[in-house]
Amino acid sequence: MGKPQIGVIGMAVMGKNLALNIESRGYPVAIFNRTGAKTKQVVADHPKRNLVPSYSIEEFVDSLERPRRIILMIKAGSPTDSIIKQLLPHLEKGDVLIDGGNTFFGDTMRRNAKLDESGINFIGMGVSGGEKGALEGPSLMPGGQKEAYDLVEPILQKIAAKASDGTPCVTYIGPNGAGHYVKMVHNGIEYGDMELIAESYNLLRQILGLSVKEIATIFNNWNQGELDSYLIAITAEILTRDDDLGTGKPIVDVILDRAGNKGTGKWSSQSALELGVPQSLITESVYARYISALKDERVKASQVLAGPQTSKPSLTKKQRQELVEKIRRALYFSKIMSYAQGFEQLRFASEYFDWQLNYGELAMIWRGGCIIRAQFLQKITDAFNHDPKLKNLLLDSYFKEVTQKYQAAVRDVSALAIKSGIAVPGFTAAITYFDQYRSAVLPANIIQAQRDYFGAHTYERNDRPGIYHYEWYHEE
Amino acid sequence: MGKPQIGVIGMAVMGKNLALNIESRGYPVAIFNRTGAKTKQVVADHPKRNLVPSYSIEEFVDSLERPRRIILMIKAGSPTDSIIKQLLPHLEKGDVLIDGGNTFFGDTMRRNAKLDESGINFIGMGVSGGEKGALEGPSLMPGGQKEAYDLVEPILQKIAAKASDGTPCVTYIGPNGAGHYVKMVHNGIEYGDMELIAESYNLLRQILGLSVKEIATIFNNWNQGELDSYLIAITAEILTRDDDLGTGKPIVDVILDRAGNKGTGKWSSQSALELGVPQSLITESVYARYISALKDERVKASQVLAGPQTSKPSLTKKQRQELVEKIRRALYFSKIMSYAQGFEQLRFASEYFDWQLNYGELAMIWRGGCIIRAQFLQKITDAFNHDPKLKNLLLDSYFKEVTQKYQAAVRDVSALAIKSGIAVPGFTAAITYFDQYRSAVLPANIIQAQRDYFGAHTYERNDRPGIYHYEWYHEE
Repeated sequence: MGKPQIGVIGMAVMGKNLALNIESRGYPVAIFNRTGAKTKQVVADHPKRNLVPSYSIEEFVDSLERPRRIILMIKAGSPTDSIIKQLLPHLEKGDVLIDGGNTFFGDTMRRNAKLDESGINFIGMGVSGGEKGALEGPSLMPGGQKEAYDLVEPILQKIAAKASDGTPCVTYIGPNGAGHYVKMVHNGIEYGDMELIAESYNLLRQILGLSVKEIATIFNNWNQGELDSYLIAITAEILTRDDDLGTGKPIVDVILDRAGNKGTGKWSSQSALELGVPQSLITESVYARYISALKDERVKASQVLAGPQTSKPSLTKKQRQELVEKIRRALYFSKIMSYAQGFEQLRFASEYFDWQLNYGELAMIWRGGCIIRAQFLQKITDAFNHDPKLKNLLLDSYFKEVTQKYQAAVRDVSALAIKSGIAVPGFTAAITYFDQYRSAVLPANIIQAQRDYFGAHTYERNDRPGIYHYEWYHEE
Repeated sequence: MGKPQIGVIGMAVMGKNLALNIESRGYPVAIFNRTGAKTKQVVADHPKRNLVPSYSIEEFVDSLERPRRIILMIKAGSPTDSIIKQLLPHLEKGDVLIDGGNTFFGDTMRRNAKLDESGINFIGMGVSGGEKGALEGPSLMPGGQKEAYDLVEPILQKIAAKASDGTPCVTYIGPNGAGHYVKMVHNGIEYGDMELIAESYNLLRQILGLSVKEIATIFNNWNQGELDSYLIAITAEILTRDDDLGTGKPIVDVILDRAGNKGTGKWSSQSALELGVPQSLITESVYARYISALKDERVKASQVLAGPQTSKPSLTKKQRQELVEKIRRALYFSKIMSYAQGFEQLRFASEYFDWQLNYGELAMIWRGGCIIRAQFLQKITDAFNHDPKLKNLLLDSYFKEVTQKYQAAVRDVSALAIKSGIAVPGFTAAITYFDQYRSAVLPANIIQAQRDYFGAHTYERNDRPGIYHYEWYHEE
């Protein structure tokens, strides 16, 4: 038997599952972990699987066929630099290192450039789908040297999730940090999707007074239509579950309203700010998690700051059904705005870093395996297939039609929420972005005038080219 | 005659004006510029002023009394590192370098730590007020070694703006990067103030159909009350001015609606994201500038994406007056939210970097000289004087009262704008933040449940301590 073509470093759950996934496609897999006990345990737990364990870096590298293909599934940050440093003396020109961690794209760019000096290929690969995805088929976003990608493409295509049409959810994303950048924006979009679902749930609960089980049914219904997606499906599922500690309550009613985060949404917003691209919906979703974390302050504030003096509207059955449908439309409309912003951010990044991203393919490989998988992504692929140079999804005919049809709903729902004292940061960011984007004229002339007044920052004119400054201090 | 106690490097307009300001308070000032011609010009233009020019770094350093006090007024970034490198061989322990540029606080922290190794004091000083402020009295935010601050305090107090009660607008902010951090948040707040004014103008124009001159009158009226501030005043002034190229139009009607930025608002938002503190209003203001910059896309989108099918409401005179007052209230309410977020960010930063910021003093030194100077800042000082440990301005009795009284207006105005298809990102961010902050319970439980479902990220419970994970995949 020949040497394994591929190895995995890091036997925590993601690395272990990815190794088992690869092995299940007929590839023997070399495995290594910093502490050997874990490696032993994996081998012991899976005696019939073709796993080739090593207990030193040198032994591990030697166990692989050349060029080596090594996937790092370890904690992002300095552990990654540390393992690369240990590997480097044993690697040879043409070997391929793949970082499958949740790594900041800037780190990947730095490592790619550094290793390139020694002729070592470095692929930063976004892996979405969680533990289950790693085992059964994740969505993969590899970025790095194209020739290195070609060396691993057959394996990646086998282990990746398959979309409903059978297409593997992996493609070459672009050079250096492109893969991790795309994964970062994917995660940002995931923050947005989750926030919009939470807001919809909250309105159904607070304004319509529906029970958790009733809301589960609504989400299940929504999942049959254009909102069909993993996150809607699992939310419906979550809402059917009761507390596992026996209080008799729905589990969501005992879960503390403090949302954590692992930083990718934050990075995504920080990068949008850096690149100069508006990305308000994801950012509001990140801030919504931050404010949720201020639980003690909020509880204190709730005792001091009263809301509006409104009584719940008394609605007929028909009006209630209409409001549910309006909330559904508001959700879908807002989701479109979030993706429009996300893809505009990808375009800015692609131009800035010269990555030549293929936007339609990105939406395609998100159709399976990953957390944001959804029927809706096909519409994005279609839009970019129709016009590969499309600047913004809102200019595509399908999305234009939906927004024209649904804007009334999101306006009504946002206004109702605001008047009722219920925060809907995602919905309001969505309709605000829509109204900004479709405004030929915005009041930024006032801001530019102020800047010229106090800082002589100059301005352009709308009737002729050039840069101008007004002599504000000379009285006329 | 003795040597000058203080010198200024950088004879562009800000440096020149600051040097002239210092000299006007009775201090001879050593001056230096990279290109000597500029130095010569400054001396030639001001023959009677006590300026001591030098044409080499060495000569400049030698011309100063010890310990030297040197203010750098140069372009932020690598030019600052370059000049520090040139200065270092000529400096001695105990000398004080002051960076008065618009420097990123992280750079200041790095330089402060590096220079500290050689016993050189380094003060990062925010300077607000533009060219005019530099000459006549800016608001100064110096951060660095306290003993170094003490050496320059007498000079800084003399050159700083004076608030209406005569207090100089300068105080010791805190160690290392504290001064530039506070200046950065000051600028972020400035972005927010400007955005809110632009939105108010836009509503008066679009919904009430008022002329530019009529809006000038309204802003002038507003400036007599609780909105009394530099930015309201200059906006009123700007709105009275006609095009200087003779089209006969108000100048604002020919200024292109594309707002620039110099990065401090962006840094402020990026830092809020990094520290985990919600700062949506400033961030929306930054994004509003970004989207204003996408002029070509917006013009194209405006031809494709129609807004809501509303006709302008026909209002009686009384209703119109009421709407103007509602917009005023919405503006003041939103301004309060922006400052509440800004000061919460300062608290997070102070705790994270251990700066022990004195929040009340910060508001105090912003009362004069700087762009955000306003009567309203006294209320912030009062709030922190009343409770130095105040966690959020909204918990102070004055701000609580205003928000209780004005929330109806901002809800009405936001809802009206959203239904009319007019973006008000600042107003909606404000009311959203208010409703989030005063919510004892937010729908973040749904997000946390989703995270636990797909990523086993665990959750807390609201009825008992501990960390929990639900076995979602085991069917019940």
